[in-house]
Amino acid sequence: MTVDDATLFKMAQKLRRHSIESTTEAGSGHPTSCMSCADLLAALFFDEMHWDPSDPSGKDADVFVLSKGHAAPILWAVLKEAGAIQEDLLTLRRYDSPLEGHPTRHSPWVRVATGSLGQGLCAAAGMAWARKLDGTPARVYALLGDGEMAEGSVWEAVQYASYYKLDNLCAIVDVNRLGQSGPTMLGHDTAAYARRFAAFGWEAIEVDGHDLAQIRATYARARATAGRPFAVIARTLKGKGVAALADKEGWHGKPLKKGEEAQKAIAELGDTNVTLKVERRRYPAAKPAAPVTPALQPQYEIGQELATREAYGNALAKLAATTPQVVALDADTKNSTFSERFKAVAPARYNEAFIAEQNMVGAALGIASEGKIVFAATFACFLSRAYDFLRMAAYSRPEHLILCGSHAGVSIGEDGPSQMALEDLAMMRALQGVTVLYPSDGVSAERLVETAARTKGVVYIRMSRPKTKVLYENDEAFPIGGSKTLRRSAKDAVTVVAAGVTVPEALEAHDLLAKEGIAVRVVDLYSVKPIDEATLVQAAQETRGLVTVEDHGVWGGIGEAVSAAVQGKARVTVLGIREIPRSGQPKELMEAMGISASRIVSAVKALL
Amino acid sequence: MTVDDATLFKMAQKLRRHSIESTTEAGSGHPTSCMSCADLLAALFFDEMHWDPSDPSGKDADVFVLSKGHAAPILWAVLKEAGAIQEDLLTLRRYDSPLEGHPTRHSPWVRVATGSLGQGLCAAAGMAWARKLDGTPARVYALLGDGEMAEGSVWEAVQYASYYKLDNLCAIVDVNRLGQSGPTMLGHDTAAYARRFAAFGWEAIEVDGHDLAQIRATYARARATAGRPFAVIARTLKGKGVAALADKEGWHGKPLKKGEEAQKAIAELGDTNVTLKVERRRYPAAKPAAPVTPALQPQYEIGQELATREAYGNALAKLAATTPQVVALDADTKNSTFSERFKAVAPARYNEAFIAEQNMVGAALGIASEGKIVFAATFACFLSRAYDFLRMAAYSRPEHLILCGSHAGVSIGEDGPSQMALEDLAMMRALQGVTVLYPSDGVSAERLVETAARTKGVVYIRMSRPKTKVLYENDEAFPIGGSKTLRRSAKDAVTVVAAGVTVPEALEAHDLLAKEGIAVRVVDLYSVKPIDEATLVQAAQETRGLVTVEDHGVWGGIGEAVSAAVQGKARVTVLGIREIPRSGQPKELMEAMGISASRIVSAVKALL
Repeated sequence: MTVDDATLFKMAQKLRRHSIESTTEAGSGHPTSCMSCADLLAALFFDEMHWDPSDPSGKDADVFVLSKGHAAPILWAVLKEAGAIQEDLLTLRRYDSPLEGHPTRHSPWVRVATGSLGQGLCAAAGMAWARKLDGTPARVYALLGDGEMAEGSVWEAVQYASYYKLDNLCAIVDVNRLGQSGPTMLGHDTAAYARRFAAFGWEAIEVDGHDLAQIRATYARARATAGRPFAVIARTLKGKGVAALADKEGWHGKPLKKGEEAQKAIAELGDTNVTLKVERRRYPAAKPAAPVTPALQPQYEIGQELATREAYGNALAKLAATTPQVVALDADTKNSTFSERFKAVAPARYNEAFIAEQNMVGAALGIASEGKIVFAATFACFLSRAYDFLRMAAYSRPEHLILCGSHAGVSIGEDGPSQMALEDLAMMRALQGVTVLYPSDGVSAERLVETAARTKGVVYIRMSRPKTKVLYENDEAFPIGGSKTLRRSAKDAVTVVAAGVTVPEALEAHDLLAKEGIAVRVVDLYSVKPIDEATLVQAAQETRGLVTVEDHGVWGGIGEAVSAAVQGKARVTVLGIREIPRSGQPKELMEAMGISASRIVSAVKALL
Repeated sequence: MTVDDATLFKMAQKLRRHSIESTTEAGSGHPTSCMSCADLLAALFFDEMHWDPSDPSGKDADVFVLSKGHAAPILWAVLKEAGAIQEDLLTLRRYDSPLEGHPTRHSPWVRVATGSLGQGLCAAAGMAWARKLDGTPARVYALLGDGEMAEGSVWEAVQYASYYKLDNLCAIVDVNRLGQSGPTMLGHDTAAYARRFAAFGWEAIEVDGHDLAQIRATYARARATAGRPFAVIARTLKGKGVAALADKEGWHGKPLKKGEEAQKAIAELGDTNVTLKVERRRYPAAKPAAPVTPALQPQYEIGQELATREAYGNALAKLAATTPQVVALDADTKNSTFSERFKAVAPARYNEAFIAEQNMVGAALGIASEGKIVFAATFACFLSRAYDFLRMAAYSRPEHLILCGSHAGVSIGEDGPSQMALEDLAMMRALQGVTVLYPSDGVSAERLVETAARTKGVVYIRMSRPKTKVLYENDEAFPIGGSKTLRRSAKDAVTVVAAGVTVPEALEAHDLLAKEGIAVRVVDLYSVKPIDEATLVQAAQETRGLVTVEDHGVWGGIGEAVSAAVQGKARVTVLGIREIPRSGQPKELMEAMGISASRIVSAVKALL
């Protein structure tokens, strides 16, 4: 492309104009945060990036992630000017428009929802890693605000990109000096940002973010830099282009008033009469192995003892061998989660994320957006570290992103509460559209891994530390939304609903009660969300009450989910963790915290 | 103190011996992670720190935070050798022992629970900030592992400490090269760590972590460094002292076997026959203003319109003026949460945390441990960023730590889902021992802030963006665990349970239904946890069903809490968010997502 700087400048001014007009029309939004990055984006979209405005897939083309999601209006503007979208920019933030206040998947040009700051670079780094894996030279660009540089997750992404030598990744930092409520920590000290990136192993260059020649030269240099990622540290003015706004406090997230205020600002932008056509440019097609439908066969014997986390590793190893689009990540717990068995089979497709769970989830989301089926595992309690990332992942509606949380609950024993995960079911259930699975034995664990790999969207699988006996035949099916009624009779007095490590306890309670002539139904609730409402309602109608038992806190977990599901048709006694646990032996803790067989027996009797 | 290096070395070997013996006895734990830092801790506790083994309060004395919590055995060992604790070290990890697998508050010497990595420096930085505020020269030391340096939260703490020039803070990084499942990203490249700290504004010095003379000299230099925090980057060997373990992979979290394996290792440590007495050293007493019981008086008029978030700011401003031990933090949202009103009254006690929510919560916990009543606010959705910190905060049982999440739910409108918080009630309820409050008007907001400031432990208050009418008289009391029945008659057919922004919707629904001759009870469930079970059960018994309505997802929120509380005594219809929302106007979204007055009317009719 041969556009000159003067023409690009006009385009940048036009993007500023759109940003003002659309936010003024909406009556809310962040015009000044758009104006600081107008030159950076004009040069990126109309000169530097190789892309095709008719194809939002980004396949064999450079992709862009707007990490500073509140600058959405200028993303919509640049896409509109490039002919990539047709929507009226003045519908910004309207309920019937895909042009949301922050980028969402309602626009096909958005791969990952942003707006919670500090996440875009993690996703972009994941995309860059996946592109290296697939052997495509196509690049990844992420625009960050300086405010979000305070998020530790950004530095997790920075170190990750450096460790994996992602020279196909370019971060552009819009250093406009002003956050939402005041100046940022570093203000316009671009040298400090550059030093920090450099110390983390990046090539980092400071530029005047309003000098198009400098910007273009630096983008070219980024493209030419091998062996390390590249950061463009751009000194900019928030509100650049309009004197009343430029570099002024008090203008964050504030549109200009309709009428004179907006008109005067737009007039000040000068000549915006420009149209530019993006040249369609692509890279040679990447040729990853053709995807395969995930399938595996458990091979256990009834009564065999193994932990579900080990079955997770076994299942992943099988998928590694048969399913080329499967990728696995782990946060330096691969010897505990058994992710290492995947690594042993497919080392290139294993991605060590080290102890940085936020970036692990963000990168996993980015990798998923490149067409992979992604598993990411760590101790369940440490996924809470990435909760905001999981929330945004749900809003990003990936095709296939599976989180595995192992070592759930007090049954981990001696390590104590910091490692126990008593709230992971609550936190994952709370997310819109997320599937939550919880196997109780080796067969269900493998089958649920297989099912998760085939399920659209975000899936959470909860794995346990202790060994449990295999309960199911290898060919048993575990559909999402189902449950298994393990014990049942015509005279069941009470239904015990268990999952994971409490299933053996429930079965033991069943036998103890049977000796006393009390029949109980036992349900393995392996699908925590969606929940098997029909079976639970039937149990509520056919028995005198339900006892739920979970190795998890009593708030937001299985007990409450069942209470809501049975719709007042029966009493529900909730057994779960109600106090801060402590170090101890697994059995000792399960007894003390009220989720053992003997506690189930007592609860059943109390219900009768 | 005049201990010589040779004696300190013997003590370090003795600490290694204790670490081996206690983990071997327990049959689990992390001896090698203790052995790498034995010299660092021997020099710190027996030479450098000014402290009093008879007084765990840490008042006017240096304090220590073990960020690498899995090294707990050596913390117990050093405390035992110093005479600070009397417990038998061989009770490590037993259910009846305070010597847990990771540090918890069962030991009075632990201020903040650790074991989830990457959190200790945040808390230590908060303590250091509070000590500056109080004008005490007493210092704060934190020992970090190199594996946890991958956590972004550590870099949040690093930048925070640098920004606030916390020269009373010393970070000691035990660079033993090996993580749980393999080498760390940087291995033994201590220079890289030093560069990164330096780029973030710290004084950072590399040392041989097994050379006691070097260690002591560097500690002295740290104490003498003014104007910036100090990092000791110590090159160490994991398992140092025993050749079979030293610098070897495969020994993370693995005790030595009883018998020959352990005995041989202990023999290799050589002479450990040493006893050292810690000289009691303290600093001149700090003299912060005497604490005052928090009290405030709302001054609103019934019907007056204001957002609960604004009332939060008003309440904080009042406490700022009257209650010297109150401190407020905010993550660059102070103009939206109205934390700025606190800052206006008490700028020295306002702590800007910038966009780094993990460190904000960690620092807030550290500040709380210095005897402050701490409020920390941001958008509720961004508290999910700090979920692991909130979890560990709950386990740290602070005296007074209050989190405020504003802009909850779809009623924020146009910004879209990334800013909405639909899972904060679930995530906060799920935490052990956390109180969850949710005011619906200005009076309840101020009163609940006052109550929160008086309540022990961790309290979460959920605030809303839109203005709502004042419903309550200024003297109304809002006890924790209570609720307000706003509409009630002898012939109530259904009970509507609302909270926050849905309370006005419920009242409107009441009036609409009254016109059709249907009487409904309306409950304002301002205390979400603990929940007012008695009132809810009574409603379940006196009416034909309950309708809950919340500006929150339906999983783990008010609907499920109420379903569990009524114990099957009535049907409960749960209204809440069930799909990913989008940008739009608040009223439009509340209608579309099913939580408006008209949707309540429909739900009531459906129940009848």
